[in-house]
Amino acid sequence: MSYNVEETEGGSLGEPRNADSDTEDAPPLSDEDVRLAATYVNDARNGNRGNFKTDPKSVRLYNLYNEPAFFWTSHMAVGALLSLVLFEDPAVPSIRLDYWITMCVELFCVCLIFSRLAHQGIFSSEKNFWRSKRRLPTLVILLLTLLDMALYVILSELGVTSVRFSRPLRPLLLLCMDRAKQLRGVFKNILLTLPDIITVLTLFLLSVAFFALMALKIFQNRQDLVYYSDGQPYMHNYLDNFFHLYVLVTTANFPDVMMPAFDYNPWFTLFFIIYLIICLYLFMSICLATIYNNFKEHLKEYVEDSVREKQNNLQLAFDILKVETEAGEEELLPRSRWMSLMRTVHPKRLDLEHSLLWDVLAGSNQTGYISKKEFFHVVNLLDMRVLDDKGREPEFQRWFPRCFRSRISRLVRKAVANRFFRYFIDLAVVANAVCIALDQDDAEWFFMVLFILEILLKFYVFGLKKFFRSAMNIFDFILIVAALVINVLELAWKSISNQSGALDFLLVLRLLRLVRLVYAIERFRIVLKTISSIGRSLLTYGAVLFVFFYIFAIIGMEAFAGRITPEPFLTNRSQTRPITCGNPRLNGTQFAMNRYCNNNFNDILHSFVVLFELMVVNQWHVLAEGFVAVTHQAARIYFIIYHLLVVILVLNIFSAFILELFMLEYTVSKEPAERKVSAVVRRITVMGLNEDESAYMDDIEEEEATEDDSEMAAADYVRGGRRPSIRFMLPRGGNKVEELLQKMYEIEREEDDNSF
Amino acid sequence: MSYNVEETEGGSLGEPRNADSDTEDAPPLSDEDVRLAATYVNDARNGNRGNFKTDPKSVRLYNLYNEPAFFWTSHMAVGALLSLVLFEDPAVPSIRLDYWITMCVELFCVCLIFSRLAHQGIFSSEKNFWRSKRRLPTLVILLLTLLDMALYVILSELGVTSVRFSRPLRPLLLLCMDRAKQLRGVFKNILLTLPDIITVLTLFLLSVAFFALMALKIFQNRQDLVYYSDGQPYMHNYLDNFFHLYVLVTTANFPDVMMPAFDYNPWFTLFFIIYLIICLYLFMSICLATIYNNFKEHLKEYVEDSVREKQNNLQLAFDILKVETEAGEEELLPRSRWMSLMRTVHPKRLDLEHSLLWDVLAGSNQTGYISKKEFFHVVNLLDMRVLDDKGREPEFQRWFPRCFRSRISRLVRKAVANRFFRYFIDLAVVANAVCIALDQDDAEWFFMVLFILEILLKFYVFGLKKFFRSAMNIFDFILIVAALVINVLELAWKSISNQSGALDFLLVLRLLRLVRLVYAIERFRIVLKTISSIGRSLLTYGAVLFVFFYIFAIIGMEAFAGRITPEPFLTNRSQTRPITCGNPRLNGTQFAMNRYCNNNFNDILHSFVVLFELMVVNQWHVLAEGFVAVTHQAARIYFIIYHLLVVILVLNIFSAFILELFMLEYTVSKEPAERKVSAVVRRITVMGLNEDESAYMDDIEEEEATEDDSEMAAADYVRGGRRPSIRFMLPRGGNKVEELLQKMYEIEREEDDNSF
Repeated sequence: MSYNVEETEGGSLGEPRNADSDTEDAPPLSDEDVRLAATYVNDARNGNRGNFKTDPKSVRLYNLYNEPAFFWTSHMAVGALLSLVLFEDPAVPSIRLDYWITMCVELFCVCLIFSRLAHQGIFSSEKNFWRSKRRLPTLVILLLTLLDMALYVILSELGVTSVRFSRPLRPLLLLCMDRAKQLRGVFKNILLTLPDIITVLTLFLLSVAFFALMALKIFQNRQDLVYYSDGQPYMHNYLDNFFHLYVLVTTANFPDVMMPAFDYNPWFTLFFIIYLIICLYLFMSICLATIYNNFKEHLKEYVEDSVREKQNNLQLAFDILKVETEAGEEELLPRSRWMSLMRTVHPKRLDLEHSLLWDVLAGSNQTGYISKKEFFHVVNLLDMRVLDDKGREPEFQRWFPRCFRSRISRLVRKAVANRFFRYFIDLAVVANAVCIALDQDDAEWFFMVLFILEILLKFYVFGLKKFFRSAMNIFDFILIVAALVINVLELAWKSISNQSGALDFLLVLRLLRLVRLVYAIERFRIVLKTISSIGRSLLTYGAVLFVFFYIFAIIGMEAFAGRITPEPFLTNRSQTRPITCGNPRLNGTQFAMNRYCNNNFNDILHSFVVLFELMVVNQWHVLAEGFVAVTHQAARIYFIIYHLLVVILVLNIFSAFILELFMLEYTVSKEPAERKVSAVVRRITVMGLNEDESAYMDDIEEEEATEDDSEMAAADYVRGGRRPSIRFMLPRGGNKVEELLQKMYEIEREEDDNSF
Repeated sequence: MSYNVEETEGGSLGEPRNADSDTEDAPPLSDEDVRLAATYVNDARNGNRGNFKTDPKSVRLYNLYNEPAFFWTSHMAVGALLSLVLFEDPAVPSIRLDYWITMCVELFCVCLIFSRLAHQGIFSSEKNFWRSKRRLPTLVILLLTLLDMALYVILSELGVTSVRFSRPLRPLLLLCMDRAKQLRGVFKNILLTLPDIITVLTLFLLSVAFFALMALKIFQNRQDLVYYSDGQPYMHNYLDNFFHLYVLVTTANFPDVMMPAFDYNPWFTLFFIIYLIICLYLFMSICLATIYNNFKEHLKEYVEDSVREKQNNLQLAFDILKVETEAGEEELLPRSRWMSLMRTVHPKRLDLEHSLLWDVLAGSNQTGYISKKEFFHVVNLLDMRVLDDKGREPEFQRWFPRCFRSRISRLVRKAVANRFFRYFIDLAVVANAVCIALDQDDAEWFFMVLFILEILLKFYVFGLKKFFRSAMNIFDFILIVAALVINVLELAWKSISNQSGALDFLLVLRLLRLVRLVYAIERFRIVLKTISSIGRSLLTYGAVLFVFFYIFAIIGMEAFAGRITPEPFLTNRSQTRPITCGNPRLNGTQFAMNRYCNNNFNDILHSFVVLFELMVVNQWHVLAEGFVAVTHQAARIYFIIYHLLVVILVLNIFSAFILELFMLEYTVSKEPAERKVSAVVRRITVMGLNEDESAYMDDIEEEEATEDDSEMAAADYVRGGRRPSIRFMLPRGGNKVEELLQKMYEIEREEDDNSF
């Protein structure tokens, strides 16, 4: 840590010596070959399949295709296409646009996506370009959209209202996007799970049908004695019975549907209890088990596929770069070609960094060559962040070294790094929360200043870069800045008007500080870490739900939009006039009595809320019956299919995913420590090139101590007589999900053990 | 199959030759030693730990202790004690008994259980008799019960009403029963899971508390604008908020609690959506994952413990019976001792059967000794049913051999065994169901006769024993007999009065025939087989729930009995007078408006129904608020604890169990066929001693063919020049759960592979 910065930076000056020696070990490769190899390495890193022709032009086109700018443009086009639904009829009222505006945007987006497809067509190496599982669907959707637009324009010019049939297809474009690999994986998993789950669901539906017949037989002769409290006949129609019993499995109507029978004869409850035990507790558990079974199996295949693809790409890159030993027995990669590869992959990094990576891969092997197995670790290595000394020491040390090392500063640093400082702040957070709960707004400014002071002190002691590397610190910082802005705004606001209500919602954000406390307790931290490590994968499931929601929302809007309108806001509390949600057919229904008028399909936002409510399941039958009342009995089918697909299938797959990941974290945590980390990380640690981030909060005192004798103690790894100033940022704590998955299925495990 | 019966029965006459040779191979053991060894073998079979002294008197006492008569008496005593709650105040109205009667029965039961404990005390070998995890609790419960009874009698004689505090402890006696090992296993599993799940639940409850505070802050300043439809203030009290949000995680009050905020401003729905995503979808999945994780781990320990105990018992038995080889290298079991052991274990079986078992264990090893490993398979072997020729051939063949073998009979048999016969019957079942659905009661007699004819034909062709060995046949038979009885009764009934309503419920049982059809389809049969193979273990979970239900029901009855009474049965359909369930405090509550008066704790049966409703979760907050209204806010705690324990803990453990078993069935089904069956079964099959039951329905035609040349083809295994007439009944299809579990954890797998 005490190395002079200039000295270590000079490392790159000493580099030419190595660069000169590059020419000795193997004939240099042409630029095209290096670029091709770099493309393969990048594909391996990003998990692309990349079926491109290998001629230089195609390679350049392919690299262009993967340029972030191009890449994001096409993704934005899909996003814009999807968000059009906000503005198209039935639109969110305040932002409705005329149809020719949305049409123009749509046309533009379709053209963009099409051009992307055409771009692919130029460099693609596949003989049958349209065989791909993604390209043909994309094209069909685009063409259907164009046809639909043309038809709609013609018909609406003729004054005929028509349905935009291509709109439910839009989210499928999301599936065809380049980076939606995980999303496609989940959908493939759903498709593969279908056959098994259909068997169980058929059996389940047969049971429901059977019990519906039984209920009919039991109660149809007792219509005089058993009836609903409003006098309606009880269980007198087979199709109604089926629907009631289906709803019963979701438990949404539970004691209510049983009560008339219970009032008549308590033993009739047995019918419902047996039904629930069989259809709810048994069949629904079996559904979850079947889905979990399938999910696990297919997840394994998915992970194996990804790994195979990655290795294929690396193999291709290696085949370009390799030289054979004289005996022809072994294929090796010479150092010179490594350097030129890295200069193409990471043109902005220093040569020093490239040769450091080489040293990590080569390890104790000083021949100037690495084997294929060693080369295959390049992906793990490239994904690690590299940091030099400048980035590691607190900024203030660099800017005011004398002041930073003064006696007072040292005391302050010790105090801030002490755990009691943390305890004190935690206590302040609790006190703050209590004040908020008791509406003691005056104290807020005091806490504000305290927390700002805390953050400033941390800036000083740990440095900005280090501070912002911890997610918890960023969270703290955002909260404080937001609170500061809000408090100032509130002050300004109050001087204008007295109504501070609009800011209440944001003020509550202060309460989020409490999350800090939870994070301070070890037992809780583990759970939170697991949650955060699966966070990205949760987004994938969010996207899956989004696709289903979008499709069902559009269908729902076509079917139900405008049929239910919210009542004008009721200003009179004791309002007792019956509510009909703008549709006399709803008069007297449970839907209207529960005042569900806002649960409608009048625009996409309301639709999403309704679909979320349907996903939570409770009261879904009341919602369904409301929409049935304003349309037709057949509308029940929409709601039943939604339930089967989203609640039984997707949510159970989500549960299966969480289950599997927790099992995984658990299995990994039980393994011996040295197996937990990958071979590359182990090597880096052995060489002393790691920057241990987890320790930086507590260990400033020890750091002080070691700082003075570091020159003696360190030097685990010396390059050119000097310890290089570059360190690897090892991933802290939680592994990434993908790594965990690969570990789970023990892929590459053998290789890991053999190669190092 | 064509062997002469007398001839094969003569096998036992040839036995003395072997019995004589017994004396040669080893000195005979004393009766006491053999009895001790037999006791150990029986313990291994039943999974008892059996800590008894090894002196002859204690062994005899221990065997007496395990006698079914003694055993069942004590179990009946516990059952009687538990069922007392039906008759004690608050009793089921029609069967209420005076308290001195129930007291006498209770005293008697307590004495019985105590005597059982004393019996144990005599033979027990444990130094610290009360250290056992079961005995001390049992004694404490018994003593508390006696104290409670004395107190209650004294107090009620003094005219003071008191609480029977020992009643909630009764179900714990169920846990202390001798055969309740699986039940104890589940409870132990629950206890071991607690620490982990408490971490997650604390985090979850903290989140709820946090969101409750947020809701308070958001809505308390908007009380003029946001309120419930009945004008009540919205989210204005912290404890109420907490309860509402807790209920929201169970989804029971979902869209309703959100609607006022939704009506005010649609963006407020985000608060609820975020809350549900975090607390419902994330935390509840994590709960399941944590429980599944723990469950799997502890299940493994449980299975390992069971296996270790079994092997300990077998080791002890073997140590008594063994002789050492001259070199002292190996310990072996001689044939003579095997025979005397078996005569004690199974005194009713023939010696021929014992020596057949020996042959299976010894296999090709003809030395007259078996090794320890071979001996350890004795438990699997003893659990198999053994059947001689007499039991295998159709009874009619034995009674009327000539008639059975006649030409017409042969035709009938072929026809019945043909698959088209089965299709025809299946078709009739469908037709029958349709007729029932359409109320065509006249057709019932026709189908009745058809199905009776079918059963009679099957009796004739397959024989009674074979017929009743299939669960599906028994099911058919019971349905038909029940239907016959009901139809006759109905006929008699109709001639007396016209009101056939009381029999409707039973008539519907006819519909159960439809289950047959499901069983006929291969895909469904697999699911049903899995369900039936876990059937017994499901009973264990039923017992676990029973224990929880019982404890909560008794506490609930003490707290809430008599406070809510059902309204007199409403004869007028258009009844609109407000309902108060006999308690004016309920006036206007949701509980009364939904007519939930019958959901009360007035007797144990109603309590169980309410607790089941609470377990299904939907509307549980309405039930809870009803009981809160008639008592106190603190009653909410009862319902929340019930939800945490039963719904979150027990039901999730049940889900974990189902998941694990399905994973298991799946793993086993993927293994190669020869690994699926145990070593013993493989051996039996190789020796041709198996009776393949699964084939008997379809293969009668082939059977006919092979019958004639069986004398040439068979003779896989010949004993004393003749094929023995005894066959083993191999378990069909589904393995037992315990075997599956042992297989899963690969216990004894190595041994299996080595020994044979």
